[in-house]
Amino acid sequence: MQTLVTETRGIAQLITLNKPRQHNAISLQMVDELLRQLDEAERDPALRALVLRGAGGNFCAGGDIGDMLAARQSAADGDSHAFFQLNRRFGELLQKFNHSRLVVIALLEGAVMGGGFGLACIADIAIATADTKFSLPETRLGLPPAQIAPFVVARLGLSQARRLALSGATIGGHQALEIGLAHQLVEDAEMLEETLEKQLQSVRACAPGALAATKQLLLASAQVSSDEDLNQLLDRGAAVFSDAIQGCEGLEGARAFLEKRAAEWQC
Amino acid sequence: MQTLVTETRGIAQLITLNKPRQHNAISLQMVDELLRQLDEAERDPALRALVLRGAGGNFCAGGDIGDMLAARQSAADGDSHAFFQLNRRFGELLQKFNHSRLVVIALLEGAVMGGGFGLACIADIAIATADTKFSLPETRLGLPPAQIAPFVVARLGLSQARRLALSGATIGGHQALEIGLAHQLVEDAEMLEETLEKQLQSVRACAPGALAATKQLLLASAQVSSDEDLNQLLDRGAAVFSDAIQGCEGLEGARAFLEKRAAEWQC
Amino acid sequence: MQTLVTETRGIAQLITLNKPRQHNAISLQMVDELLRQLDEAERDPALRALVLRGAGGNFCAGGDIGDMLAARQSAADGDSHAFFQLNRRFGELLQKFNHSRLVVIALLEGAVMGGGFGLACIADIAIATADTKFSLPETRLGLPPAQIAPFVVARLGLSQARRLALSGATIGGHQALEIGLAHQLVEDAEMLEETLEKQLQSVRACAPGALAATKQLLLASAQVSSDEDLNQLLDRGAAVFSDAIQGCEGLEGARAFLEKRAAEWQC
Repeated sequence: MQTLVTETRGIAQLITLNKPRQHNAISLQMVDELLRQLDEAERDPALRALVLRGAGGNFCAGGDIGDMLAARQSAADGDSHAFFQLNRRFGELLQKFNHSRLVVIALLEGAVMGGGFGLACIADIAIATADTKFSLPETRLGLPPAQIAPFVVARLGLSQARRLALSGATIGGHQALEIGLAHQLVEDAEMLEETLEKQLQSVRACAPGALAATKQLLLASAQVSSDEDLNQLLDRGAAVFSDAIQGCEGLEGARAFLEKRAAEWQC
Repeated sequence: MQTLVTETRGIAQLITLNKPRQHNAISLQMVDELLRQLDEAERDPALRALVLRGAGGNFCAGGDIGDMLAARQSAADGDSHAFFQLNRRFGELLQKFNHSRLVVIALLEGAVMGGGFGLACIADIAIATADTKFSLPETRLGLPPAQIAPFVVARLGLSQARRLALSGATIGGHQALEIGLAHQLVEDAEMLEETLEKQLQSVRACAPGALAATKQLLLASAQVSSDEDLNQLLDRGAAVFSDAIQGCEGLEGARAFLEKRAAEWQC
Repeated sequence: MQTLVTETRGIAQLITLNKPRQHNAISLQMVDELLRQLDEAERDPALRALVLRGAGGNFCAGGDIGDMLAARQSAADGDSHAFFQLNRRFGELLQKFNHSRLVVIALLEGAVMGGGFGLACIADIAIATADTKFSLPETRLGLPPAQIAPFVVARLGLSQARRLALSGATIGGHQALEIGLAHQLVEDAEMLEETLEKQLQSVRACAPGALAATKQLLLASAQVSSDEDLNQLLDRGAAVFSDAIQGCEGLEGARAFLEKRAAEWQC
């Protein structure tokens, strides 16, 4: 891996975007490496969480200029799909991370722009420093935030998505907290580590299979568009519940509760 | 009724979950009694609001352990649907209360956990004390909040739903207010009563038929998933409006407005 | 025009609702004039923003009483569609402004009620004074906020929409900011002008075509109701991106970025 640094810490896989001189701008290579890391982490039964952060004081400042120039050359050479594929591949990254069975935690500091803003939007738990700078500057470059838009709307709702994407405005950590872009605010970068530990402690208390099932039910809940959809989702939920409570995790959860001890998730 | 205490107060039916020793955990029997109360209240033309609260300082701490043990026994005896039905029945409760023609007001204090959190999510108006404790602890018991998930997402949006359900974190009244789980905060339980009176005064000023029609239009608005859907909903809305303004409530509303007096809703 | 005052200011078309004695209540005539203004503004390639405000210290206090009385007469004379058409026409106004390629900015002060509340909900950027009064008083008049409901839910989410529409409660600027009804708060009406200038400066930095494309992608994002929908939207987004980056705006954006100068959008 040339663009990432990784570390396994108990139930969590930590991934650091590591191109600090480019403020961790996401290149195609980084997308490939992130997807490979995600795939490996998901196949490791010991893992329950995936932590995303950036090296050098910034989370991620958007897309990679080098890739843009290369795609322009490809287009000039007659590859009419070069820009489509470059852009769409980033959407695929967001889709895969969004649907991961793992709890995705983002540690946000410095620049969280464009594609970095998109990554923040697919985190299950987002922790930010107060002085983090969030923005969607694409339209100032003559471009739409095309792959990011659906994830921004799903995360912030239409009101804040319109306001931020249509002005390119920059907001800080406090506003990010108010609109649900961040879930927790810390004073400075040193506090990120400490807060991460507490969050991982919370995740550790939760059963891995139940977490994965819950995440899928929540994502499906956001797509309900009729009473019939809702009935189907509740039926599916009841089946998932019935399996869970009779499975290894449900039995351990019940036993631990009755015995007034912490559950041990070793299913 | 063995699990509820009820009281009719003008336009409002008050229902108190009354198993204080179990922190008002919702049993199958309580579900049945709640649905029966809802049905009766909806058929009473004098009623416009339904107030949900808990006895003994807690709103509701989730599901009933006794029911779980009984379902486990039924499952062991070969009833493979026991857990499905137990779980799904609670979803039915949430659906019915969510769609009630009555304005549902929840008075939240103490523990608002799991199923109690779900009930809070279907309230039209939620008033909470500052020290109320809200959480979705299911995954810590090895279970998904399966029936609750769609109502949590509909209420809080995907961002807060993911964060709360995937960490089992507890939040207080102030955070609940910020994320729209509560609409109004009061200092302590004594203030709940006073604030309820003011809210009921607001509801009393609104026409019962218009309230019911509005609630259905709002619920349908949350299911719009195409421009065609929106056109259909606006057409339906215009038809509902046309009926309302030419009906008894619309005429009384117009007369009261022109005569600068409070309207009397006796249609 | 009899109900509006307009002014072109650089990239922005300003429209002032101008029936101050009626607190700028929206009449059918005003709807017609607003739609004509919108149509003209959208066809002017020099324009990127449309600013809505009200004359005389109020934004807009709802629907016009005169139109209501006229429709009642028409209905009495046998035109059974009079109220349907009156109501539906206002929904059409909201739809058209909501989908405008222009960035819609609302300057909110005084009364923002009923139909005025609906207009606030379709603004991309809403700036309000702290003492603005927002409410949906329809049910107190015996009526549902029928055309407004879908836009309120899209803007505020279901939780705040239910609470506000089902109680007729009035909220001030601070609460409006908290729930995303307003995006920016100013002390008093004099500050509105200054803040507008800053927002227009932001919009001026953004490419017109990219703004229009982004807005359409955001609106479409709010209608995603399946993973297949999402895939289609991301494919569409990648195509839009590919066109934009190879078009005049994308080229100017890239050049300006590399030359470290402000982009000039003259495509």
